[in-house]
Amino acid sequence: MQESENKATWIWYPGDFEIWLGNIFNNRRTERGAMFPPFWKQDSHWVTVEFSKSFELTEAETITIACEGQFNHALDGKLSSPALGEVRRGLHYTLTVPKGQHRLNIKIWNQATPPALFIDGKTIKTDSSWLVTYEDKIWIDENGVAHGSGIYVPAASWNFDSIDTPPSGFQLERREQRPVSRRDTTTDSTGGTIYDFGRETFGYLKVMGLKGTVRIYYGESEEEALDKEHCETLDILSSHLSPLTSYLSSKAFRYVYIEKEEDSSYDEVMMDYEYAPHDLQHSGSFRCSDEELNRIWEVAAYTMDLTTREFFMDGIKRDRWTWSGDAIQSYLMNYYLRFDTECVKRTIRQLRGKDPVTAHVNTIMDYTFYWFKSILDYYQYTGDTTFIREIYPRMVTLMDYCIVRTNTDGLMEGLPDDWIFVDWVDFPMHKRGVLCFEQILFVEALRAMAVCSRLCDDDDDGYYQMEAERTLKKVKDLFWSEERHAFLHAIEDGTMNPQITKFPNMFAIICDDVTPIEKENIMEHVMLNPNVDPITTPYMRFYELEALCKMGQQTKVLSEMKAYWGGMLREGATSFWEKFNPEEKGTEHLAMYGRPYGKSLCHAWGASPIYIIGKYFLGVRPMTPGYETYEVRPILGGLEWMEGEVPTPFGKISIKMNQHEISVFSDGGQGCLILGDRLIDIPPQQEINITL
Amino acid sequence: MQESENKATWIWYPGDFEIWLGNIFNNRRTERGAMFPPFWKQDSHWVTVEFSKSFELTEAETITIACEGQFNHALDGKLSSPALGEVRRGLHYTLTVPKGQHRLNIKIWNQATPPALFIDGKTIKTDSSWLVTYEDKIWIDENGVAHGSGIYVPAASWNFDSIDTPPSGFQLERREQRPVSRRDTTTDSTGGTIYDFGRETFGYLKVMGLKGTVRIYYGESEEEALDKEHCETLDILSSHLSPLTSYLSSKAFRYVYIEKEEDSSYDEVMMDYEYAPHDLQHSGSFRCSDEELNRIWEVAAYTMDLTTREFFMDGIKRDRWTWSGDAIQSYLMNYYLRFDTECVKRTIRQLRGKDPVTAHVNTIMDYTFYWFKSILDYYQYTGDTTFIREIYPRMVTLMDYCIVRTNTDGLMEGLPDDWIFVDWVDFPMHKRGVLCFEQILFVEALRAMAVCSRLCDDDDDGYYQMEAERTLKKVKDLFWSEERHAFLHAIEDGTMNPQITKFPNMFAIICDDVTPIEKENIMEHVMLNPNVDPITTPYMRFYELEALCKMGQQTKVLSEMKAYWGGMLREGATSFWEKFNPEEKGTEHLAMYGRPYGKSLCHAWGASPIYIIGKYFLGVRPMTPGYETYEVRPILGGLEWMEGEVPTPFGKISIKMNQHEISVFSDGGQGCLILGDRLIDIPPQQEINITL
Repeated sequence: MQESENKATWIWYPGDFEIWLGNIFNNRRTERGAMFPPFWKQDSHWVTVEFSKSFELTEAETITIACEGQFNHALDGKLSSPALGEVRRGLHYTLTVPKGQHRLNIKIWNQATPPALFIDGKTIKTDSSWLVTYEDKIWIDENGVAHGSGIYVPAASWNFDSIDTPPSGFQLERREQRPVSRRDTTTDSTGGTIYDFGRETFGYLKVMGLKGTVRIYYGESEEEALDKEHCETLDILSSHLSPLTSYLSSKAFRYVYIEKEEDSSYDEVMMDYEYAPHDLQHSGSFRCSDEELNRIWEVAAYTMDLTTREFFMDGIKRDRWTWSGDAIQSYLMNYYLRFDTECVKRTIRQLRGKDPVTAHVNTIMDYTFYWFKSILDYYQYTGDTTFIREIYPRMVTLMDYCIVRTNTDGLMEGLPDDWIFVDWVDFPMHKRGVLCFEQILFVEALRAMAVCSRLCDDDDDGYYQMEAERTLKKVKDLFWSEERHAFLHAIEDGTMNPQITKFPNMFAIICDDVTPIEKENIMEHVMLNPNVDPITTPYMRFYELEALCKMGQQTKVLSEMKAYWGGMLREGATSFWEKFNPEEKGTEHLAMYGRPYGKSLCHAWGASPIYIIGKYFLGVRPMTPGYETYEVRPILGGLEWMEGEVPTPFGKISIKMNQHEISVFSDGGQGCLILGDRLIDIPPQQEINITL
Repeated sequence: MQESENKATWIWYPGDFEIWLGNIFNNRRTERGAMFPPFWKQDSHWVTVEFSKSFELTEAETITIACEGQFNHALDGKLSSPALGEVRRGLHYTLTVPKGQHRLNIKIWNQATPPALFIDGKTIKTDSSWLVTYEDKIWIDENGVAHGSGIYVPAASWNFDSIDTPPSGFQLERREQRPVSRRDTTTDSTGGTIYDFGRETFGYLKVMGLKGTVRIYYGESEEEALDKEHCETLDILSSHLSPLTSYLSSKAFRYVYIEKEEDSSYDEVMMDYEYAPHDLQHSGSFRCSDEELNRIWEVAAYTMDLTTREFFMDGIKRDRWTWSGDAIQSYLMNYYLRFDTECVKRTIRQLRGKDPVTAHVNTIMDYTFYWFKSILDYYQYTGDTTFIREIYPRMVTLMDYCIVRTNTDGLMEGLPDDWIFVDWVDFPMHKRGVLCFEQILFVEALRAMAVCSRLCDDDDDGYYQMEAERTLKKVKDLFWSEERHAFLHAIEDGTMNPQITKFPNMFAIICDDVTPIEKENIMEHVMLNPNVDPITTPYMRFYELEALCKMGQQTKVLSEMKAYWGGMLREGATSFWEKFNPEEKGTEHLAMYGRPYGKSLCHAWGASPIYIIGKYFLGVRPMTPGYETYEVRPILGGLEWMEGEVPTPFGKISIKMNQHEISVFSDGGQGCLILGDRLIDIPPQQEINITL
């Protein structure tokens, strides 16, 4: 730790890197060549911020300063600047600080990219011990006396640890890939050629040696690439336009269909696969006796890797915006796969943006609540209170936005501004008035506020905790039917819609909002009731399977996974889809949103087996924040054997199990192995072997 | 009007041009070469906005689209974009729109400068009839059906009426000037030369034919330019660094002292004077029998011209930020000089910035209240309800910020975050607790809210009007001393500070907060009482002279102007100063803020004779918004004769008066000439001549 504390790194105002990068990320979405920005507010970084630190030097020290933006510095309040032509923006600047006690303030202005600072000296180095503000409020009175009342927060940083790698230059990594096959569709000289890269992929197509102009049609399926009129993404590339002609913006595809214009030619087609690097040594793994389940896990892991990017993306072909409801599932899967906590934090910050709050997250009420819940999850898996303290002020203002919008019962009712999403369903579903589902999530959001307000010493006499309890009681009073053993769906204008859907009921199980007996009744009368409309998206199957697992239905869940995700594999999936209906045939699987190729064939929420297997088959979950204590409750669910690893903040927890024995090894934490009624301690760094 | 409605012009989100330009403007301030950004929050434009309009075409029309930023367009909801390589950012794009009813939506993303749009066709042209939003909230459900709930406002525009003059290229005009004299300070080859440009000026110094390096020291006085250690602004210019070496950033100066480094040389020194163009045909003017007063008016007008820039600036040498308390005076002077309403609107928008409000305007409580009052003034002088409707939502959120911060009496007390300015004073003045002065301004701010809420149909049952009345009553109950015929100064922790200052008392006169008898008493016991501490800044002299004039003390005010502003002229002023104490001598006049040249020798608030003469000698003021009706109440105040013109929205009002007769001519409006008890109608376009 000593070493990393002594390393200089680029710093900036918390959240600003993500807000800036998020705009680039979200605005990369295209629809048949047209740029397609989000329909919600895009914020901006603070364009002028000030960094500061006090320190004592035992000897004079020469420091190197690099800034992204125009800047000044004040040493012990004396203003200076490289504005005299000695250095220019982008160059480095040196300053000698004399021995003794000093305070250094650096103010940076940058409209285009977040103001960022890097200082390296023998002892003076930028890191999170520096403070930053967007408003120092330091003014000088007529006698030259300074007064100030700015609000300072710790500066943010990541891994930009070299003066030559400022945050604005951030890029994911790339690796060249070649198509596995090609086929000419005609023998004509302007005829097209279709290339197959072997499986779903993401990156930058390269048309090498291009002379003239080609038209490029991308497809997640061969049908899509060949359907020039309806494919979702396409490009025109011409050597006449720019020296960068062999390089296009990033796209998702497996197939590429290319047509040449008259007198045009190229040598070959390749791509640069783009990806977020991850550490295999610190990743989750899974193998078992069922080869189909192994393949499901692998394809789910690849789906996660394709969608884990600057931020967690939902669908890599079309959607390409950050979406809170999708992201929370990615986070949970990620805790069982790569444990990439930086990407979780980036996505949480980006989704929230800045004040004032003018809409729900992604304009969707449910997505606001998931945003809160995702912070509670993050804290539970990582124990990272620094991030909680950073994000808490933005939690407060978003919750204020919600509370102002509650109805006279204190419940969240959809206002004209609000998109009530819940799920894509094939049956009529009431979405106006007060939905029970939304209230169940609202209670979770209030619980997240309760936990985080305590962590930030902003307990407010338990206000949020009381609100959570009061709201849950109101919800149970209003919606719970003792007769039908279920939460009913919605009330609009005082009239109850007696529809029963799985949505509120499965969340009530997951969130422990009901008694064990009520849970059993929900299982029987809702979750396992064939008369209740089925869930058809992997999105809500995530929660459905979680609820079933929570109630010990692993054997059923295993067969469901093999049927549903196995069904996609049998349809040729190389990554998991946005939606799957086993009853559809052929190209019906490709259509959605009224468009023949509207469905995303690589959608983060399709990867949920990663989470289900890690948490409910391997059975690992933190009991206290950051896995300080954890439980392992392994369940074979019909498998002959399984083995796997789950990443944690301290390393990994490894499990091997068959029907006769189990062994567990953990790099840290205090674990508890739960086998039916047996509770066995798992000390750190010590393998335990148990005969069943 | 028909013609201008049919002209295409660049459009953007209201306020965003000003916020972006304001950051550039405010960050140009330097202190001895060091960049010096403001200590308050700098906002950013909305980085992604959408423009839209519906129209019907009787025939197909080809339109040209130019955007500042990356963009897409949707014709009748069908998305398209020039992203296919056909055009690139900065180039123009053409689109043919078929005959019939259509809707065109254009979404633009631009982080660095405000997203802006220019469309020109036979009938389709961008102008303020287009709508704009930063959040369209238009989402597509799973059936491809669009839903939306964005908040749309009319797009903003100014005079960027050519496709080749986008808003991001905005610059003031420039004109070359040469020094009137030069003098070498030594005969040494590296010795310095001092240049005198004849009077205070502002712009870009040019060192022609530079070879090598020169050090440049600017001065508003010769003493400052020659004092290399203490002059407020300086530059280093080197031909080694950049091809732009002959051009520096803008500075204010009269004198420039230049020293050459060894082996350096240049041909000559010139400057580009930078200024906001104005229409002399539509400007105020004044001449009278007193040559000193004529010179005061001219130097005040030049001071105004030097400080009327992208925004109204306070001091052109050092301060160079927008300041609300300074600006409101500039606006009022401007209504009697250039009637540059665009600069008023720009400055009001820039000062306000964006939500959330995190501090008072410029962090100063009084400056927040002046900001409100300036909108009321603007409405009275221009009658422009379009601007009121544009700015009103930001008035509401700023007033919310104030109301949340009132104490249990509903009064505005300085919180630790607040700078309580009032004035630069040479005597001890209590600034903690509840200041009467601040409450008097708060009442004005509430009145501005009352007027504007009615104009925007947001009357809220007269809430703001009632709050204004309630607050004024509270203030009178608390602070008014019948015994001393004055408002007392402050209450802190329940204890009244019985100090009497002119500040609350003169504002009570100006704002008609007290009865005519109370006003007379205030005049006698405060304003004309030699035992009350005098006002020494032109800033508060503005209001002091206004209060005196309002009470008919023009003769006294004339002699005060001759003594005070005439005093500055006798000290050699070529523009009016930030502060003037007639008792100081020589270089004492240059010092302020504990710095030998800290005082600004060209400060907008020094130009108040423009306002006093126009409003209280020529006696012109609007009685209803936009001069629909107005009064002319001319008072010679001891002058033998005077003549002048006052600009209005409809042209000018011209007055000639001596001790025997008066003539008035107005281009429009319904006027009333008031001469003692006589009231004479002034019809438009008809000269009236009255014998006194």
